[in-house]
Amino acid sequence: MRLADATWTDVRDADVDVAVVPVGSTEQHGPHAPLGTDTLNAVSVAEAAAATYERAAGADDGPSDDRGAIAVTPPIPVGVAEEHRAFDGTMWVTPDTFRAYVREAAASLPAHGIDRVVLANGHGGNVEALAEVARRFSRDPDHDGYAVAFTWFEAVGEHAGDMGHAGPLETALLRATHPELVREDRLAEAREGAADRWGEWVAGVNLAHDSEEFTANGVVGDPAEGDADRGRVLLELAGDALAELLAAVVERER
Amino acid sequence: MRLADATWTDVRDADVDVAVVPVGSTEQHGPHAPLGTDTLNAVSVAEAAAATYERAAGADDGPSDDRGAIAVTPPIPVGVAEEHRAFDGTMWVTPDTFRAYVREAAASLPAHGIDRVVLANGHGGNVEALAEVARRFSRDPDHDGYAVAFTWFEAVGEHAGDMGHAGPLETALLRATHPELVREDRLAEAREGAADRWGEWVAGVNLAHDSEEFTANGVVGDPAEGDADRGRVLLELAGDALAELLAAVVERER
Amino acid sequence: MRLADATWTDVRDADVDVAVVPVGSTEQHGPHAPLGTDTLNAVSVAEAAAATYERAAGADDGPSDDRGAIAVTPPIPVGVAEEHRAFDGTMWVTPDTFRAYVREAAASLPAHGIDRVVLANGHGGNVEALAEVARRFSRDPDHDGYAVAFTWFEAVGEHAGDMGHAGPLETALLRATHPELVREDRLAEAREGAADRWGEWVAGVNLAHDSEEFTANGVVGDPAEGDADRGRVLLELAGDALAELLAAVVERER
Amino acid sequence: MRLADATWTDVRDADVDVAVVPVGSTEQHGPHAPLGTDTLNAVSVAEAAAATYERAAGADDGPSDDRGAIAVTPPIPVGVAEEHRAFDGTMWVTPDTFRAYVREAAASLPAHGIDRVVLANGHGGNVEALAEVARRFSRDPDHDGYAVAFTWFEAVGEHAGDMGHAGPLETALLRATHPELVREDRLAEAREGAADRWGEWVAGVNLAHDSEEFTANGVVGDPAEGDADRGRVLLELAGDALAELLAAVVERER
Amino acid sequence: MRLADATWTDVRDADVDVAVVPVGSTEQHGPHAPLGTDTLNAVSVAEAAAATYERAAGADDGPSDDRGAIAVTPPIPVGVAEEHRAFDGTMWVTPDTFRAYVREAAASLPAHGIDRVVLANGHGGNVEALAEVARRFSRDPDHDGYAVAFTWFEAVGEHAGDMGHAGPLETALLRATHPELVREDRLAEAREGAADRWGEWVAGVNLAHDSEEFTANGVVGDPAEGDADRGRVLLELAGDALAELLAAVVERER
Amino acid sequence: MRLADATWTDVRDADVDVAVVPVGSTEQHGPHAPLGTDTLNAVSVAEAAAATYERAAGADDGPSDDRGAIAVTPPIPVGVAEEHRAFDGTMWVTPDTFRAYVREAAASLPAHGIDRVVLANGHGGNVEALAEVARRFSRDPDHDGYAVAFTWFEAVGEHAGDMGHAGPLETALLRATHPELVREDRLAEAREGAADRWGEWVAGVNLAHDSEEFTANGVVGDPAEGDADRGRVLLELAGDALAELLAAVVERER
Repeated sequence: MRLADATWTDVRDADVDVAVVPVGSTEQHGPHAPLGTDTLNAVSVAEAAAATYERAAGADDGPSDDRGAIAVTPPIPVGVAEEHRAFDGTMWVTPDTFRAYVREAAASLPAHGIDRVVLANGHGGNVEALAEVARRFSRDPDHDGYAVAFTWFEAVGEHAGDMGHAGPLETALLRATHPELVREDRLAEAREGAADRWGEWVAGVNLAHDSEEFTANGVVGDPAEGDADRGRVLLELAGDALAELLAAVVERER
Repeated sequence: MRLADATWTDVRDADVDVAVVPVGSTEQHGPHAPLGTDTLNAVSVAEAAAATYERAAGADDGPSDDRGAIAVTPPIPVGVAEEHRAFDGTMWVTPDTFRAYVREAAASLPAHGIDRVVLANGHGGNVEALAEVARRFSRDPDHDGYAVAFTWFEAVGEHAGDMGHAGPLETALLRATHPELVREDRLAEAREGAADRWGEWVAGVNLAHDSEEFTANGVVGDPAEGDADRGRVLLELAGDALAELLAAVVERER
Repeated sequence: MRLADATWTDVRDADVDVAVVPVGSTEQHGPHAPLGTDTLNAVSVAEAAAATYERAAGADDGPSDDRGAIAVTPPIPVGVAEEHRAFDGTMWVTPDTFRAYVREAAASLPAHGIDRVVLANGHGGNVEALAEVARRFSRDPDHDGYAVAFTWFEAVGEHAGDMGHAGPLETALLRATHPELVREDRLAEAREGAADRWGEWVAGVNLAHDSEEFTANGVVGDPAEGDADRGRVLLELAGDALAELLAAVVERER
Repeated sequence: MRLADATWTDVRDADVDVAVVPVGSTEQHGPHAPLGTDTLNAVSVAEAAAATYERAAGADDGPSDDRGAIAVTPPIPVGVAEEHRAFDGTMWVTPDTFRAYVREAAASLPAHGIDRVVLANGHGGNVEALAEVARRFSRDPDHDGYAVAFTWFEAVGEHAGDMGHAGPLETALLRATHPELVREDRLAEAREGAADRWGEWVAGVNLAHDSEEFTANGVVGDPAEGDADRGRVLLELAGDALAELLAAVVERER
Repeated sequence: MRLADATWTDVRDADVDVAVVPVGSTEQHGPHAPLGTDTLNAVSVAEAAAATYERAAGADDGPSDDRGAIAVTPPIPVGVAEEHRAFDGTMWVTPDTFRAYVREAAASLPAHGIDRVVLANGHGGNVEALAEVARRFSRDPDHDGYAVAFTWFEAVGEHAGDMGHAGPLETALLRATHPELVREDRLAEAREGAADRWGEWVAGVNLAHDSEEFTANGVVGDPAEGDADRGRVLLELAGDALAELLAAVVERER
Repeated sequence: MRLADATWTDVRDADVDVAVVPVGSTEQHGPHAPLGTDTLNAVSVAEAAAATYERAAGADDGPSDDRGAIAVTPPIPVGVAEEHRAFDGTMWVTPDTFRAYVREAAASLPAHGIDRVVLANGHGGNVEALAEVARRFSRDPDHDGYAVAFTWFEAVGEHAGDMGHAGPLETALLRATHPELVREDRLAEAREGAADRWGEWVAGVNLAHDSEEFTANGVVGDPAEGDADRGRVLLELAGDALAELLAAVVERER
C-alpha cells in the first residue's frame, strides 16, 4: 500500500504489519544520473519489497497466510548530503534536522497502531544518521514503536563491493526502473571523470570530508558497468532482502 | 526544470531564476481523497506555474525575453498536521522540525547561486510555519537568499472562500490532475460526514485544536462541489498567480 | 485579579476560572505613540474583560452565579518584532524563544490548578507564534492545561478592517486609556509619513518582510482617525469579546 | 528614559549611554507581599539609578557634563523560580528559556547602537542565569555589546546580610515604594511561619532545592524588620550603587 | 570504589550508597601548575571523601554500620572555562553543553539504582552550572535521582578566603598530591605576575568577564603561600566535609 | 605532550602539530574487564602514537626533522553507550550531547592555533558520532580547524576481524598495559557467557539495539584469545597507524 495514495479509511481498514519509509537524497549523481537518484532507488526497492512481502501472503502454505499489508510512506527527499555541496543542485540538511524530521515523521505511525517501521535508505550519507534514528525511536518511552534502518546497496550480496557513487549499482538500478532519466550520451564523460574509490585513505581513515576532494565530476566507479539487466538483478536482490527483513521484524519479539 | 530529474551539470548550465519548493503534507483527506492530496496539489501548481513562467520567456515581446528557468525541487512530504492525528495514516512533525527541515533544505540553493526561493504550499497547517521560514531565510546573514511563501488555495480569487478541508477546492484540483486517486464512490459518504466550517468559533477565536473535534470523517465543505472542470480553473488561477509571483520575486530589489 | 498584586495565599484562596496572559511587544509605533503600545493595549483589554467577566458573576440570574475569578498575569513585554528592527528602540526575540517563554510561563499555571489559559495579544507579529503556543500547550502530556490565543484588534467587529500599525485603532485605544503617552503634536507628521497598507503584495503574497520597506516613519493607516471616543468603543468591543471567550473556555469540555 | 513610554523617534534623538533591563519574577512572597515583588523592586531600583545618573549630568562640574541618558526597558516579568513552585501563583520558565529571552531581548539594543546593557535584577534565583547571560552577551561575535548583571540586594552594604525571602529587605523596599501592596494585617502571620535561613545546609552545601522544604509560608527572615524608612535607605543605597555601576560601564574600555 | 576500575558485576554486587562525579576543567593555572589542576584536585578530594566515608562503615559503633560503598566515577575533564580562553591550552565547552553532559552522564546512575549523586567540583567557573544541574536532576520526572553540587575550596573553613586562581589553595593541594606536576622553579615568576584578586569590581559587580583582563600570567593569589603541608590540611578538610555531605545525602528523606 | 600535565606556558612555547583527543566510554566490559576499558585503551594508543610521532622527529633523515609535538588532551570519559544500559555501572549521554561536548572541547584548540585535531576513539558506539563531529568541525566557518576520527581497533590489520566486545582485542590491550585491572580469575566465566557475534542479523541489518539482547554477560568474542603479547602487538599496530595518520594530517593541504 502506497500510503500517500490511500485514504485514511483505507489505512484504518487495512491490517498493516510494517511501515516502510523510503529515505532518499537530492544530490549530484554525476553528469549522467539525476539529482533524485537516491530517492527513486529507495522507493523502487521499498515497493518491490512490499509487493514481495504481500505476495507471500497469498501463498497457500506456511505461516505467511496471516500476513498483513506493508505501508510505504512518501519518501524523505532531502538528506545528509553536505559532502556533495560543491556540485550544483545538491540539497542537504544538517544531520540534527534530518534525524528529527525522519524520527518525528516515523513516530506518527505508532500513533495509529503501526508500531513497526523500516527506514529504507538509498544514500550512503544517511546511513549513520538513520541507525541513530532507529535506536532512538525504538527506545522512545512515548510510544511502542520499533524501527530498524536498511540501505539497499548493502543488501545486494557480492555486488555491494562495487558501490561507488553514481557508479555501476546506482546507474544499473535506475536504468532498470527509470531509463529515461539516465543520460546515455554522457556515460563516457561520466566514467572518464570518475574516481576509482570513495575518499582519500590513510591508516584506515578517510581524510576527505567532501566528494569534490577526490572526484572531478562527482562519480565514483564506472557507471557503464551497470546496465539494465544488472539493475533488475539488484532490484530483486535488494527487494528480497528487504522483504525478508520485514518478515523478521514482524516475527520478532520486541 | 524538475530539479530531481536534472543532473548537476544541467543545473550548472541552466540559468535558474527562482527555485520553487513544493510543500505538502501526508494527512487525512476524508474517505474519498488520498493522504497525499496536499503534496500532489502543491506539485501540480508549482509545475503549472513554472511552465507558465518559462513559456513567457519565449514570447516575442517585453521584458520576459531574458527569463531563465524555474527549478522545482522535490516536494516536502510531511508537514505540520498534528491537528489531524486522530485520523489513520496522518503523518506530522513538530513545527520546529518542519521549519528547520524546510529552511535548511532551501538554504542549499543559495549555496549554488539560486538565491530566490518560493515555498509553494498545499496545506493550511503549514502556512504559519512557512511564513516564519521565509522571513528567517531572507534575514539569514549566512547567505544572500530571499524567500516568500505562497499557498495555492489562497490565490484562486473568489474560490478561496470555499476552501474547507478535502472539500470542493482540493477535490476539484485532484480530479483535474489525478482523477484515479479520487474515490468517486465515497463522495456521498464524504459530504454526509462533512462539517460546514473549519473549527469551532467564539469571539473570533477557534476553540478547537484538532479536526476531530468538529468533523466526523475529516471533511470540511462539500467535495461534490468540486468537479474536474473547476479543478482546471483552479489550476490555472493558482498557477498564474504563482507565475506572477515568480516574476515579481525576480524583478524585486532585495 | 491582577496576579502580580495578589499574594500566593490570595491565589490559593481564590477560585480562578481562567488565567489571562497579556502579550505585548516593545516596538516602534510611529513618532506619536510609545514603544510600549502593544503591551499597554493588551493589558487594557485583558483587564476590561476580566472586570466584565467577574461583574457577570454578581448578576442575579443564570449560570454565571458560580463564576470564579480571572487571574491577569503580568504582560509579556518583548515579542516577535524583528520586522520593526530598522526603527530605534524596537526590541525582539526569535520566535523560538518567544514561544518557549510564553508557553513555559503559562505552564506554571496548571501546576497550581489553573488549567485554562487565554493569551491576550496586542501585536500582529505575535499572532502566528501564539497560535502555535496554544496548540502545543493544549496537547502537552505533562499537564492538563488548555489554551487559546486572542488578539484584541481582530475582535472589534467592522473596525478590524482599519487596523494598520500605530494607526487608527491602536492610537484610539491608547488615547482612551493612556492619553498622556500619545504625542498629539506629532500626529500630522505621523499621518504624512504613513503607508496606506501593511506590506507590498503580489498574487496574495506580501513580498516585504520588514516594515521599513513600505513605511517611512513606521506608521500604517491614519492615526488621526482614532480619537479617544473610538478608543472607548474599541475597548468595550474587545473587552466584551474576550469576556465572551473566557466564558466559552470555562464551559467547554476539553 | 522609560523605553516603553518613549517613541522610536525619541530614542533615535536621545544620546543613550546605557540600557538598564529590570529583571523580576512572579513568585510567592509570603502571605503579606505580592507575587510581583521582585519585578516592582527591580524597576524601582533601576529608575532610581537612572534618575541619579542623569541628574549628575546636570551638575556643573566634572566629567559628567557629557552624560547621556539611561534607557530603562520594560521589566522581564517571569524568571527562574521553580524553587517556589509549591506556592500558588508562582510562575517560572526553565533557565535555558530565561537566558535566551533576556539575552535576545537585550541583543536588540546594540542593533540600535545602544551597546552597553546592565541587567538590574530583583530575584535571587535569577542571579546565576544572568551572570551567564552577561558573559555570553559580551562575547557574542554578532554584535559589539557589553553587559553586566547587578542584583539590588547585594549592593546595599551591611543590610545585605538580612536578605532572606519576602523578609526585611524586600518588604521594606516595597513599603517605601508601593505600600498599598503590602498586607500589613498579615505581617504577624508572615513572621510566625517564616524560616530563619534560606535552605538546609551541610558542609557548605544547601540540600534543599525547593523553598517549601524549609519554609512553611514562603517567608525567610522577619518582614517586620523592614519598615518604609529602611526601604527608603535601601532604595538610595541600591540606586546609588547601580548609578555608580552605570558610570563605570560607560567609562570602561571594552 | 573507582567506578572505571570496577567491572559491571562488581557494581551489581556492591551496595552503593552514593555516586560521586568529580568535575574538573582543563585550563590555565599559571606558569607553575598544570592545565589539569582542577580535575586532579576534584579527584583527590572525591577519593579522600570516599575513603573516609567507607572507613566509617567499619567502625564498631553507631549508625554507620550499614554503610555501603561510594562509587567515584571518572572525572569530567572539560568545563565552563571560556574566561581563560586567552591562555594557551585552555579547553572549554559552552555552559549548555556542559550542563547536558554532566546531567546526562549522572542520569545513567539512577538507571542502575544509584539514585544519589554528588557532583564534586574543582573549578570556580563550573559552580553556577553545576548548581543548576543538581536542581534539574533532582526534579527530573524521568528518574528518582537526587543530586547536590559540592566545590572543594568552598569547604575548607577559613582557608576558603585565600582561594584565588592557581594560588595558595590549588597549588598547595597539588603539591601534597602530585608534587611532580608543580614547577617549583617558576613559583617566583608565578607570584610576580599574579593579581591580588579575581576580577575588577564596582558596586559589587565584577566588570571583567575574562581573566586576562586582570591577571597577566593567569595567577590570582600567591602560590608560594601553599606548601604541601597546607595541601594535606586542605585535603583533609575538604575530604571530611564531602564525607559529611555524603552521609547527609544518604540519610536525607527526599 | 600530555596536555593536562603541561602548563599554559608550556603549550605556548611548544610547536604543536596536532592535538589528539582520546575518546572513551564508561561501560560494561564483561565480568573480567573494567568499566573504563575503552578510555584506558584510547589513551594508551594515543600516547603510543604521540611517542612514535615525536620520536621520528629526532631521526636524522627525511622530512620529519621539523616535526613538532603532539598534544594529547584528557580523555572524554563518557560516550554513546546506551546499548549497554542493562549492565550495571554503564554510563552514557545522548549522541547529541556527546557530539556537542567533543566538538566544542576540540574547538578550543584552534582558538590557540592548534588547528589539526585527531579524535582517537576506543568505543564502537562512538564511531558514527565522531565521524559526524569531525566533518562538522572541519566545515565550521568559525575556525580554521580540521579533524578526523580514528578508532584503534579498526587499524590493527587482520586482528580487526576478531573485535567483539570485551573480547580478545580489548582484553589483550588491557593486559599489556593495565594487567592489574583484568580479572584473570573470571575469564572462564567471561568466555562461557559470551556471544559469538555482535548483534542479531537479518538481511544485513542488526535487529538488536541493546547488547543484552544477544549477550548474557556483556561479552562478545573470547577474551582468552587475547594475552598480553597480543596486546603489545595491537598497541604497536594501532599506535603506528595513528602516528601515520598524524603525519598525513600535518602534511595534507586543507
